[in-house]
Amino acid sequence: MDINECRSKIDELDVLLVNLLNERTRTVQEIGRLKRDTRMPVYEPEREKLVLENVSRANQGPLPDAELRYLYGHIIAVMRNVQKNLNPAFQPITDSSGLAVELKE
Amino acid sequence: MDINECRSKIDELDVLLVNLLNERTRTVQEIGRLKRDTRMPVYEPEREKLVLENVSRANQGPLPDAELRYLYGHIIAVMRNVQKNLNPAFQPITDSSGLAVELKE
Repeated sequence: MDINECRSKIDELDVLLVNLLNERTRTVQEIGRLKRDTRMPVYEPEREKLVLENVSRANQGPLPDAELRYLYGHIIAVMRNVQKNLNPAFQPITDSSGLAVELKE
Repeated sequence: MDINECRSKIDELDVLLVNLLNERTRTVQEIGRLKRDTRMPVYEPEREKLVLENVSRANQGPLPDAELRYLYGHIIAVMRNVQKNLNPAFQPITDSSGLAVELKE
């Protein structure tokens, strides 16, 4: 491939990436609604740890694991905001383990 | 879907995302080799602008455009490092428009 062919390929891959990120966002919104209805906290550090383990396990390179985890740290942060924005008025107070310890509305 | 089904779906989407990110990395490495061989600069702000325009155009939501561009800013930065790491000894000096103005080795 020459450089223009490589760039066309990247543009096509990016469209697929955008679609997957949106599919992920829709699923995260669904979880957000379930959490809201059952008063579960948005921030769940144990689940976020499992997400990182899953992507590291799936990673066959050449993207280095550290770079993948760096990117996923940002993806997780964005998705957490998506959940919070579903209902900004409702934010359970959580303890250091992320468990809801008191509810306010 | 209940919350566990949603999480299984996210785990599956993440495996697809990791594979696409690696396919993108491979293509970026190919570009990096072409740039190295033709002494083109790694940093090309005009191309990075086009990448952001492409993903914004492809975005049908629900991920907000600002969040998508935020994530892509990090993806682009990681990919730029991937190119630089192909040959750390060779870094063309670029002017403010990203054009190589002097070569050092």
